[in-house]
Amino acid sequence: MTDAPLIAGLELGGTKCVAMLASGPDAVHEQVRIPTTRPEETLAALEAVLDGWRGFSAIGIGSFGPVSIDPRAGDYGHVTSTPKPGWANTSVARRFAARYDVPVGFHTDVVGAALGEARWGAGQGLDALAYVTVGTGIGAGLIAGGRPVDGLTHAELGHIRVPRLHGDDWSGMCPFHGACVEGLASGPAIAARTGIKGEDLPADHPAWDSVVDALANLMTTLVLTGVPRRIVLGGGVLVGNPHLLPRLRAATRLTLNGYVVRPELDGMDTFLVPAALGGDAGPLGAVVLGAQALAERSERSFTRI
Amino acid sequence: MTDAPLIAGLELGGTKCVAMLASGPDAVHEQVRIPTTRPEETLAALEAVLDGWRGFSAIGIGSFGPVSIDPRAGDYGHVTSTPKPGWANTSVARRFAARYDVPVGFHTDVVGAALGEARWGAGQGLDALAYVTVGTGIGAGLIAGGRPVDGLTHAELGHIRVPRLHGDDWSGMCPFHGACVEGLASGPAIAARTGIKGEDLPADHPAWDSVVDALANLMTTLVLTGVPRRIVLGGGVLVGNPHLLPRLRAATRLTLNGYVVRPELDGMDTFLVPAALGGDAGPLGAVVLGAQALAERSERSFTRI
Repeated sequence: MTDAPLIAGLELGGTKCVAMLASGPDAVHEQVRIPTTRPEETLAALEAVLDGWRGFSAIGIGSFGPVSIDPRAGDYGHVTSTPKPGWANTSVARRFAARYDVPVGFHTDVVGAALGEARWGAGQGLDALAYVTVGTGIGAGLIAGGRPVDGLTHAELGHIRVPRLHGDDWSGMCPFHGACVEGLASGPAIAARTGIKGEDLPADHPAWDSVVDALANLMTTLVLTGVPRRIVLGGGVLVGNPHLLPRLRAATRLTLNGYVVRPELDGMDTFLVPAALGGDAGPLGAVVLGAQALAERSERSFTRI
Repeated sequence: MTDAPLIAGLELGGTKCVAMLASGPDAVHEQVRIPTTRPEETLAALEAVLDGWRGFSAIGIGSFGPVSIDPRAGDYGHVTSTPKPGWANTSVARRFAARYDVPVGFHTDVVGAALGEARWGAGQGLDALAYVTVGTGIGAGLIAGGRPVDGLTHAELGHIRVPRLHGDDWSGMCPFHGACVEGLASGPAIAARTGIKGEDLPADHPAWDSVVDALANLMTTLVLTGVPRRIVLGGGVLVGNPHLLPRLRAATRLTLNGYVVRPELDGMDTFLVPAALGGDAGPLGAVVLGAQALAERSERSFTRI
């Protein structure tokens, strides 16, 4: 770990940003939180932090989305079509790349968290992993071969539509899809349906059945992508309701119904697991994104020689 | 093309196998079809064909599934839990690797077809693509960065569960999941529901609404993986019913409802497209799998030096 490069990791969240100067969870030199306000104010505050740091070899950024992660696209490194006031079409990655003469890695916060959990957390030693957050929104980050799974864009599997529990006709609250997984099982969806925040909803409330069923369908779809060797779960709704994870394991097993046969799926207790890095998954994941950008530039330099 | 290596490509299908000695679609030296019977008989017949061929640098195999594609697994290169009589737990890739002193690439038939369509067919120039076949079964192959997307295993997204059209309560016919996409929209599902084979079902039959809806949900889920820059469609149900593709484009647009904003999705006519290689997608895809295995061995040799 001691010879790992020092990276500036930035987590851009909907309510706060975290900047971390680190080479790993045991080597965090600096950590600063900044509220997320208007983009110009927020990004300038992050630059002020980085201007004061020395010795980082790369910058990694894990951002709330949607973002453009296609290096060939004109809007690469932007936060794109977010409803968050002022942030639509905000250039992030190229702004930092222009200011600091180091490689910049950029992806979604959940892909960053997947990379962080794979390297130092609940997915250690696994090169293929999903990280799912169930909180204000529902996001899924996928990595395979130790790298983000993407192409046209990043995963948005929180928005898949799912079959409904028999007799459940609540319309859901996703402005795009109504009763997609996020529209049924996110924190705001639970609150809209029950009038009670997810953190405060009793474990025996019947609305949990619909939440568990929607999330089990998301887990099943993730398994059916063929990618994850484990699914790591975080976010306020899951962290705040420990009764959910055992129910989700049981429901996922029923939904898959034995279709995919791999040893990893025999032990649902080790396949669906809670996140281990907690609130540090975001900035530590950003550190991995920066380290990967650094490694890629080194590979390219080597190839040129 | 002339300096492309000569590859022996094997497509293992449920009813027939195709062996092709080629370096590309314009350089097919040999092509042989063999009925798929018991595994020992079928594989011996393929070996007899390959024994008579000279000059191939690698073997590529695209197989019906499920298969084990994890090189670290003990059952790597096997057809695994198929209900096809005699074929469960049949070693394929290692058998050919042991008999011929060349690299062997191995994956599903649909990932092979995706690679073939990306190199020479309807996805030329794209490094991230999905190939979907709607026929006896429903399979989806995903590639990103020009390589198969996998991890724990290969994609099985034909088995995702989907919301039902209002008022449609047909139970579906997937033995594992009932009304998953394959259980609602495969050729046998259409025949079980209507008593008429998909090829003969009139375009105005009301059962098509349910088929289109299920397939549109599959397309939407593929988009939400973030991977494909285009989805290439093949298989008997789609090829035999030209009215389906325009309906599927319209339904997919409605299901996505503008959520993912990328220029590629503005033109659904160029995003959801028919396969271009027809029946040759399988063996040509196997040729690409062989060429990739050859390239990987060369890279490893280079690294060792």
